[in-house]
Amino acid sequence: MKLRNKLRKIVEENDTRSGRYFDNIIQILILISLISFSLETLPDNSDQFNILLKYIEIASVILFSIEYALRIYVSKKPFKYILSFYGCVDILAILPFYIAHGLDLRFLRIFRIFRVFRSLKLIRYNKAMRRFHLAAKIVKEELVLFLMVAAIFVFVAASGIYFFENEAQPEKFSSVFHSLWWAIVTLTTVGYGDVYPITIGGRIFTFFVLLIGVGIVAVPAGLIASALSKAREIEEEGK
Amino acid sequence: MKLRNKLRKIVEENDTRSGRYFDNIIQILILISLISFSLETLPDNSDQFNILLKYIEIASVILFSIEYALRIYVSKKPFKYILSFYGCVDILAILPFYIAHGLDLRFLRIFRIFRVFRSLKLIRYNKAMRRFHLAAKIVKEELVLFLMVAAIFVFVAASGIYFFENEAQPEKFSSVFHSLWWAIVTLTTVGYGDVYPITIGGRIFTFFVLLIGVGIVAVPAGLIASALSKAREIEEEGK
Amino acid sequence: MKLRNKLRKIVEENDTRSGRYFDNIIQILILISLISFSLETLPDNSDQFNILLKYIEIASVILFSIEYALRIYVSKKPFKYILSFYGCVDILAILPFYIAHGLDLRFLRIFRIFRVFRSLKLIRYNKAMRRFHLAAKIVKEELVLFLMVAAIFVFVAASGIYFFENEAQPEKFSSVFHSLWWAIVTLTTVGYGDVYPITIGGRIFTFFVLLIGVGIVAVPAGLIASALSKAREIEEEGK
Amino acid sequence: MKLRNKLRKIVEENDTRSGRYFDNIIQILILISLISFSLETLPDNSDQFNILLKYIEIASVILFSIEYALRIYVSKKPFKYILSFYGCVDILAILPFYIAHGLDLRFLRIFRIFRVFRSLKLIRYNKAMRRFHLAAKIVKEELVLFLMVAAIFVFVAASGIYFFENEAQPEKFSSVFHSLWWAIVTLTTVGYGDVYPITIGGRIFTFFVLLIGVGIVAVPAGLIASALSKAREIEEEGK
Repeated sequence: MKLRNKLRKIVEENDTRSGRYFDNIIQILILISLISFSLETLPDNSDQFNILLKYIEIASVILFSIEYALRIYVSKKPFKYILSFYGCVDILAILPFYIAHGLDLRFLRIFRIFRVFRSLKLIRYNKAMRRFHLAAKIVKEELVLFLMVAAIFVFVAASGIYFFENEAQPEKFSSVFHSLWWAIVTLTTVGYGDVYPITIGGRIFTFFVLLIGVGIVAVPAGLIASALSKAREIEEEGK
Repeated sequence: MKLRNKLRKIVEENDTRSGRYFDNIIQILILISLISFSLETLPDNSDQFNILLKYIEIASVILFSIEYALRIYVSKKPFKYILSFYGCVDILAILPFYIAHGLDLRFLRIFRIFRVFRSLKLIRYNKAMRRFHLAAKIVKEELVLFLMVAAIFVFVAASGIYFFENEAQPEKFSSVFHSLWWAIVTLTTVGYGDVYPITIGGRIFTFFVLLIGVGIVAVPAGLIASALSKAREIEEEGK
Repeated sequence: MKLRNKLRKIVEENDTRSGRYFDNIIQILILISLISFSLETLPDNSDQFNILLKYIEIASVILFSIEYALRIYVSKKPFKYILSFYGCVDILAILPFYIAHGLDLRFLRIFRIFRVFRSLKLIRYNKAMRRFHLAAKIVKEELVLFLMVAAIFVFVAASGIYFFENEAQPEKFSSVFHSLWWAIVTLTTVGYGDVYPITIGGRIFTFFVLLIGVGIVAVPAGLIASALSKAREIEEEGK
Repeated sequence: MKLRNKLRKIVEENDTRSGRYFDNIIQILILISLISFSLETLPDNSDQFNILLKYIEIASVILFSIEYALRIYVSKKPFKYILSFYGCVDILAILPFYIAHGLDLRFLRIFRIFRVFRSLKLIRYNKAMRRFHLAAKIVKEELVLFLMVAAIFVFVAASGIYFFENEAQPEKFSSVFHSLWWAIVTLTTVGYGDVYPITIGGRIFTFFVLLIGVGIVAVPAGLIASALSKAREIEEEGK
């Protein structure tokens, strides 16, 4: 059992040198496997390169599997770990390889990126994380209200533009659901330019939608920012 | 009269269990009727599906009518309710069905969404709502000033771009009113790409318009956000 | 001289009833003349309508001229008024009509809109205006720094994208000056879609430009907003 | 050695009249050389104009070289200067002229713009600069966290949209790397309109990406703004 304790120190914690090494190796492995995942999607890879990527994938899955087994082995409550967020992310990062031969579950591999978050648990970010939680608690009610109002607003905007533009552009605003795409692209000010009103009524409606809507979308970001500075103040007073 | 008092408790308030049930049922009904309204606009519905949606519509109008009658019946001042904001919204939610056979007033049905706001009056959002009112009072003057300046700015931008681009693109910038469309789409940074300056003069003008204008449009959101955090402080001090 | 004093009270001030009437009439006149200016730009006006607009223009110029003469007459220091900002705006609002027969100076008429600002001097906005001035003084240094950094950044972005895209799209990124158009449209996140990088190098460059640049453009608005709330605090403490 | 001390006062400092003259002349030279660099990129320059620009370039390189030599000569620690940021910028501003005859290193000339920053060290901006440094220190942790989350988010968005759109638009979303372009253009709300989802799945995915992502991109700007006002408060208390 002494080995298990020793291993736990390495695998679960990072206040020892070997613990930090372990963490860094895993981080680099994650990065390599994400890059190789991205490279695999390139359309004009040579066969040789694809075989290389395949080997990298096999190697990283083997290493991740060993890590997963280790984490279960050293955990004081293995089942709690398996069912935890990071437990699920860890299994999702390797499972597709084992079961997906008929299906194309390669996509699930990007779940590996969530494993990166584990490194955010490092000590120096603890304080910032705590501030985020505090800020989230401070503005939760306002944010929920804003999101509800925003959701209602998006729906009203989509219904309105459908009413104005459906006849003029039946293939672009063919239903309220299609208009929702316009509403979200417009209110976030992305404005791809694939759908936009062409009737005078639709343009005047858009005018007012933008006048009100841009504020509804931009205010939450400002709320979070000012809550974060508030959280910092509270923290400083608490010290 | 005891029944009326009992019903009032259920219909108008939500601090009893049956009151909450009533509220939730109405909310779900609103959601169903809005979804069915949206589905109706889909272009390729089968006849059977359309008939189903028709029945849902009839059912929800009947239930909303009963609710409306109930609200009048239990209200202490029925006329005040009828003329109130929610009274108007409630009647607008059902009226189109009764009168609109020749005209296409289906659009009015989306007024039902405003009924959702009633649920925002729940206790837990009361505080956040009060903060919004307080914040609105704090920045009212600045916001009005900003909106006036923004309105003037939009008009100047539209006139200016008309002056620069009218000759080069007479069909896109055919009048100051057409240019207003460009001004609002540009200053909110949506930028669909359907209209944009092509002359050198127009582009230099746009350069300066954007330099000043983006600020004019973005500052109000920041104002509201900081007023909200101010409102929270005032509230906390008052406690 | 008593008449002159009386007239001054009406023309220059708005704390008497007749002063407010005078102000409101001028405001309405400005609005009418701006609307008629906008309507004149419509391409498909009938001849009759154009003649009507012409008459409205003549009438408003006559009334503005009378007002201008009055303002000079009642002013204690006529020359100071003539050379002041509002004096120049007032003369620019009527001059084009008198001198512009060969030239097309109609555009100068939109200067009339600046006359609207005069009404902002009303008492109830005085406080908000003073706050704006205070806020401007607070963040002046930061804003100047930010604008300089932003100007440098825009130039670097334009030069960089010229370097990457000039060969691939010689007609769109034909010089650094043409690339400036791309830079300003991209950094303000308008993104019309008329010019955008297509080479890999240009896209990676844009990636980093956006990463840094969006902040540079968005921060000033936040700065102004927080300076305004600071100005409000100072004002409240001073009370 | 008296001359060297005198020259140092002129070249390195700007609290004497001749020091300020020297600084201003260098600034104007930088501006002239940047404008001539930009003009050189114009496609339709006459030969005469190009020769003029060439002469301006030669003249400014000579003057910059003299300045560089002077700075080394007067510096108390010449090697420290040569290896400092401004030392590197100064050499990069002239080196391309001397070595680049075969290669096209003209692009390096835009490094001259960084020389402009030197003038920001003027006394009146010192305070604002110090505030920026203080603000950067205050929000460093939050900014790093946000950038990491943003980077992860951009990658997840790119992978997701690749999954949804690759089949429908294989030439636009041909790999995760190509999708990264879409992700950055969308999340910064630029939205050129060159790539956008067309499948229903891709659009719903974009809906959620925008909902979360716009906040992640907009919050940092607000953070910096509120940190700057915090820095101002700290400074005022310290006085």
